[in-house]
Amino acid sequence: MTVASSLVERILARDQRAVARAISKIENDSSDANEILKAVFTNSSRGLTVGITGPPGAGKSSLVDKLALHYRNLGKRVGIIAVDPSSPFTGGAILGDRIRMQTLANDPNVFIRSMATRGNLGGLARATIDAVAVLDAAGYDKILVETVGVGQDEVEIVKAADVSVVVLVPGMGDDIQAIKAGIMEIGDIFVINKSEREGVERTERELIALLEMSERPDGWHPPIVRTIATQNKGITEFEEAVERYAAFRQGQAASQSRRKSVAENRIIEILREKLLRRVLREAVTPEQLDQYALEVADRLKDPYSIVEEICRRIRIEEV
Amino acid sequence: MTVASSLVERILARDQRAVARAISKIENDSSDANEILKAVFTNSSRGLTVGITGPPGAGKSSLVDKLALHYRNLGKRVGIIAVDPSSPFTGGAILGDRIRMQTLANDPNVFIRSMATRGNLGGLARATIDAVAVLDAAGYDKILVETVGVGQDEVEIVKAADVSVVVLVPGMGDDIQAIKAGIMEIGDIFVINKSEREGVERTERELIALLEMSERPDGWHPPIVRTIATQNKGITEFEEAVERYAAFRQGQAASQSRRKSVAENRIIEILREKLLRRVLREAVTPEQLDQYALEVADRLKDPYSIVEEICRRIRIEEV
Repeated sequence: MTVASSLVERILARDQRAVARAISKIENDSSDANEILKAVFTNSSRGLTVGITGPPGAGKSSLVDKLALHYRNLGKRVGIIAVDPSSPFTGGAILGDRIRMQTLANDPNVFIRSMATRGNLGGLARATIDAVAVLDAAGYDKILVETVGVGQDEVEIVKAADVSVVVLVPGMGDDIQAIKAGIMEIGDIFVINKSEREGVERTERELIALLEMSERPDGWHPPIVRTIATQNKGITEFEEAVERYAAFRQGQAASQSRRKSVAENRIIEILREKLLRRVLREAVTPEQLDQYALEVADRLKDPYSIVEEICRRIRIEEV
Repeated sequence: MTVASSLVERILARDQRAVARAISKIENDSSDANEILKAVFTNSSRGLTVGITGPPGAGKSSLVDKLALHYRNLGKRVGIIAVDPSSPFTGGAILGDRIRMQTLANDPNVFIRSMATRGNLGGLARATIDAVAVLDAAGYDKILVETVGVGQDEVEIVKAADVSVVVLVPGMGDDIQAIKAGIMEIGDIFVINKSEREGVERTERELIALLEMSERPDGWHPPIVRTIATQNKGITEFEEAVERYAAFRQGQAASQSRRKSVAENRIIEILREKLLRRVLREAVTPEQLDQYALEVADRLKDPYSIVEEICRRIRIEEV
């Protein structure tokens, strides 16, 4: 039995350490990650994945923690993945050490992990979605994926979830426009957290106006839930909204087309990385790449000509 | 003379409409975009590119507008690129219609453009960096690139700028941690905008503490500038800080290594896209891709096995 297949067996037996190790392998793009992923993919236990996004300062972590606690009170096993934007110069995650609620961290039925990109060949979205698949195979009933920011990766991650939640706060002022652009359309549910704050009425009114402007193809009307996560207020309503959408979504034709589009993205994403790796391994040495980069940095050559040069040197053909 | 080469000629002659058209070609990945880019790349007029990022609500647009106006008063030609997070379902940008200052919009020496990703083959970072190269060739003295959010794309874009500015606001509370993770390390200059607000002292103190924790390889100590963009306060100090860093950066060895790393990223990014396109064109029909996506959506197959299947069908070799 290979290391990978014994790891898969332990994942299916709900061994937390095996889950953690598999996710590390995915993050580090270890050679047996593929084998693990193929096995877990077809062993889904159909847990519910909830993607939670919103701007910094919206209190997403507290909200996720309280939702997780709520699920624990209902007897559910919970996985939490906190996606950290990468540190572009050092490649490390700084959020890793963020303190989550002690009660959660010590609960054997809660798995918490933060993930970050590393390097150019990263693929944070891919790695996160793969980690969700591992948690799913390990029988977690609810998998909460929390992302910071409104970048492409975050959008990709949240789109891949079964239920997408956008968290806002009162009084975001004139820049609600900016938030809207990126994440408004992906929300199946909207949460106005810190709803004790001034401006909650106005934020809700603006949100309603925005939602009325856009008709969803599936006919779902995203509910707006007010919460004060730090005081544990509105969490039950939030959880009910999640379940309501999850139930609605089942069997929807639009839901199948969304799943298909998510699947296509994943295939393309994996293909893109695999092709790049293969070419970097087989046709461009690190020394060559270094030399090319130097020439572009000094503006002796442009990057497009260099890529053409590389592509001329390789042949891609069907066999 | 080809369409592309006549366009390049007009770009070098500073024709705004030619600039706009070239950027559209880049966005739409038109077939002659490559030819244009090769030409502009080696015709850099060495304009200064300033990347400005920060969380939604920080007032980046106002700050960019006021900095642009300041540059205009100094007689500089200014290009502004506002990067909009994409709308994941419709693929369109919503920020495009954002109202910028009338004085700027009507000034023939100011070029304003917003950019957004479209579809999976997107590459927002690539397209933005290419657009900057076009503006640079068109002789804009200062090119301001404004991004929303802290995703990978945004980080990539800001890293590629000559000067990177991170904009914060007072009272970001406990989530300054989250912002820190993504963008703290890329700031050559920090701006605390809306500095009339309560909590400015604390935000500045925290920022100083964070900056003291991390030593930059180039020895630069990122200054903190307080501004109130809407009242045009602190803009001169901001502009001076930008020039100070630009001057410092010149001739720094660390700066060359940063340029080299940016160049390497660009080569890899372009190569990655080109390889994917070639394979999608030559070895996978849209119908096949559709079929694959359906199989993955229905969990009949996993995406990794499908990519392996595709890769087995093609041969990549050096010629």
